[in-house]
Amino acid sequence: MKAEIISIGDELLIGQVVNTNASWMAEELNKAGIQVVQISSVSDEGEHIKAAVNEASERADIILMTGGLGPTKDDITKKVLMEYFGSKPVFHDETFEHIKGLFKVRNYPVTEVNKMQAEIPDNCIVLPNRVGTAVGMWFEQDDKVFVSMPGVPFEMKTLMTEQVIPKLKDRFGTTYIVHKTIMTIGIGESMLAAKIEDWVEQLPENIKLAYLPQPGIVRLRLSVSGNEEKILKEIVEQQSDKLYNYVPKAIFGFDDISLEEVLGIILKEKGHTVSTAESCTGGYIAHLLTSIAGSSEYFYGSVVSYTNQVKANQLSVSKTDIEKYGAVSQQVVEQMATGVRDLLKTDYSMATSGIAGPDGGTKEKPVGTVWIAIAGPEGVKSKLFHFGEHRGRNIRRSALMAMNMLRIELSK
Amino acid sequence: MKAEIISIGDELLIGQVVNTNASWMAEELNKAGIQVVQISSVSDEGEHIKAAVNEASERADIILMTGGLGPTKDDITKKVLMEYFGSKPVFHDETFEHIKGLFKVRNYPVTEVNKMQAEIPDNCIVLPNRVGTAVGMWFEQDDKVFVSMPGVPFEMKTLMTEQVIPKLKDRFGTTYIVHKTIMTIGIGESMLAAKIEDWVEQLPENIKLAYLPQPGIVRLRLSVSGNEEKILKEIVEQQSDKLYNYVPKAIFGFDDISLEEVLGIILKEKGHTVSTAESCTGGYIAHLLTSIAGSSEYFYGSVVSYTNQVKANQLSVSKTDIEKYGAVSQQVVEQMATGVRDLLKTDYSMATSGIAGPDGGTKEKPVGTVWIAIAGPEGVKSKLFHFGEHRGRNIRRSALMAMNMLRIELSK
Repeated sequence: MKAEIISIGDELLIGQVVNTNASWMAEELNKAGIQVVQISSVSDEGEHIKAAVNEASERADIILMTGGLGPTKDDITKKVLMEYFGSKPVFHDETFEHIKGLFKVRNYPVTEVNKMQAEIPDNCIVLPNRVGTAVGMWFEQDDKVFVSMPGVPFEMKTLMTEQVIPKLKDRFGTTYIVHKTIMTIGIGESMLAAKIEDWVEQLPENIKLAYLPQPGIVRLRLSVSGNEEKILKEIVEQQSDKLYNYVPKAIFGFDDISLEEVLGIILKEKGHTVSTAESCTGGYIAHLLTSIAGSSEYFYGSVVSYTNQVKANQLSVSKTDIEKYGAVSQQVVEQMATGVRDLLKTDYSMATSGIAGPDGGTKEKPVGTVWIAIAGPEGVKSKLFHFGEHRGRNIRRSALMAMNMLRIELSK
Repeated sequence: MKAEIISIGDELLIGQVVNTNASWMAEELNKAGIQVVQISSVSDEGEHIKAAVNEASERADIILMTGGLGPTKDDITKKVLMEYFGSKPVFHDETFEHIKGLFKVRNYPVTEVNKMQAEIPDNCIVLPNRVGTAVGMWFEQDDKVFVSMPGVPFEMKTLMTEQVIPKLKDRFGTTYIVHKTIMTIGIGESMLAAKIEDWVEQLPENIKLAYLPQPGIVRLRLSVSGNEEKILKEIVEQQSDKLYNYVPKAIFGFDDISLEEVLGIILKEKGHTVSTAESCTGGYIAHLLTSIAGSSEYFYGSVVSYTNQVKANQLSVSKTDIEKYGAVSQQVVEQMATGVRDLLKTDYSMATSGIAGPDGGTKEKPVGTVWIAIAGPEGVKSKLFHFGEHRGRNIRRSALMAMNMLRIELSK
């Protein structure tokens, strides 16, 4: 089954927005066994949208469109599709009630333009949008499916996951593609490839392996397709079990689970609590931990100590040591970890102190130099890292490595 | 002048790679006064590439392609373009010398496939690639320009900046497109549209307006094209100045600047320092503030108080008040703000306490209920918000609203 993605919006064509929607959709469609043959970004112009839909329908069976469904004048996708499919507008009470409900919660008044969002083409199936005001619209013509969704990423993702993908599977599917993604951390892509070489060699021919690197993390995705889902699942499980022996410490989870979620699960299981003392990560570890629902069970809090005064006064780091060794040092990061653990009375703690950049580097401690410590009932451990020059990535990698040190400690 | 971008590579169609190349190119082309009419991602298949080039040449004068120029078998762009333009291969000594030079530096042996990279179509202009092995190729046919570049981002960017853009300017001349993006916060898209209706009505016809909403933020983009860059800039400046009177508090900046950057600039200018006390935002405000380089000048630190004990012990919030009013209350959030301001000795502070969800809501305080306070030399102010059901967005919106309250306070 072949699909095409049409992303509608001038913002894509002037480079203001990177088309992350399309790559997310492509990945989800592929997982569902649907091949994406083309992705097109087009302008907010009626004739252009129609031409793109026409061209796409010559190549694909499924045409997925995002964008141009907002309440304002430049959002014309609905109007254009009504012309294309010869639709008449009908007022959709359910949608209007839903819009009114959303606005009530936010204490916004409902305006005339919002009311117009409840006017729906008569010849489409409405895909209700529980997280936004613009509904999805599912048209069928000449055995092909055309779906229009809003461009706001979380609205599109909710519609895709809950409605579009399941409906497409119902409508078209029989071949299964089974994927399993193995999440690894702490080993770079080429080093990882070398370590698992023998495992890669023995993989059956029908299993595809993809390396999907991100800063600090490498995902390994196994894919296999066939007719019997149960057998396919067994095949990838077997291979993923085998892989474990090659890099036991590096694998922290499966199928796009985040490290903060894995760490949360371990902490909850063991009944341990945690706190953080953050300098270069500036609260990012706390943010990652608290992005997980239910984290208040194990996360007590954090002291973000961006100045030496806060390190000394709140975390009881020795002023002499700060002067003698510098804020970015083993001595200071270890005292930060034990300091916050004592202060917030948690079982474990993580601490970071480093030079995120772009300024602040020296010859001995260049940008990217980061000390990380974890403290627990059995004492404190620390490790020195050298990341790169990019501030955002240094913060991200520091947070990941801190959580990974604690994960490994707790898994012992 | 109209351009189209064709990104070639299967990795784009399985969602493995986000197409950041295309958005970067679109931005650069727009800056050069060249309008991008479509961006297409296509597979590594000859017929598909040719069809895309054909379609693009019907819409645009300039067709820019990236990808598929590597040394491996799946890289077929050059072969396909030679068929398309009826080219013969010629061996390009200069390119081969350059490739040999690159390999010598890296201590790699030159293989037969590398030698093939020096075979160039006879009817193209070679655009030497000083940072890689695959050259750019510039074809002309029927008054249209077709350029093929490697897909490796820094190679493409070097070629675009140093050769393609200057050559396109020479070839096609001088229409300018000027954009200005106005960043607003605190007013939803439809409410904003209602408030600025009169301003929208009076916009000259040659100015295009686009609404670009994100959770908590709505960006308004003005675009105008013409021959004299200076006049165009004046036109958008005038309109952006006029808009200010309609929503003076809502506008926090221009051209995709972030709120945390704006707040940092104001704090730096005024010589003020800041701290945060975070419950529901869990360190996210601190993270946003410290994502800005140089934030250590004004940001001292943060206490993330995820438990009532930390609120009471570290931030001196009254235990009686926590019991009486609950942690999510005006009383508690104001004491958190004054508590962290006193503790870390900063001029200003921000505090958040709310129910991020998905659990923890009650009838009186449903998920999305958030109290935010700011404290400063003139006392403490607080405000109650009702966001939605989504944990991540509640955290994001709480952080934005806290920073916005402080921004408005400091702008008085």
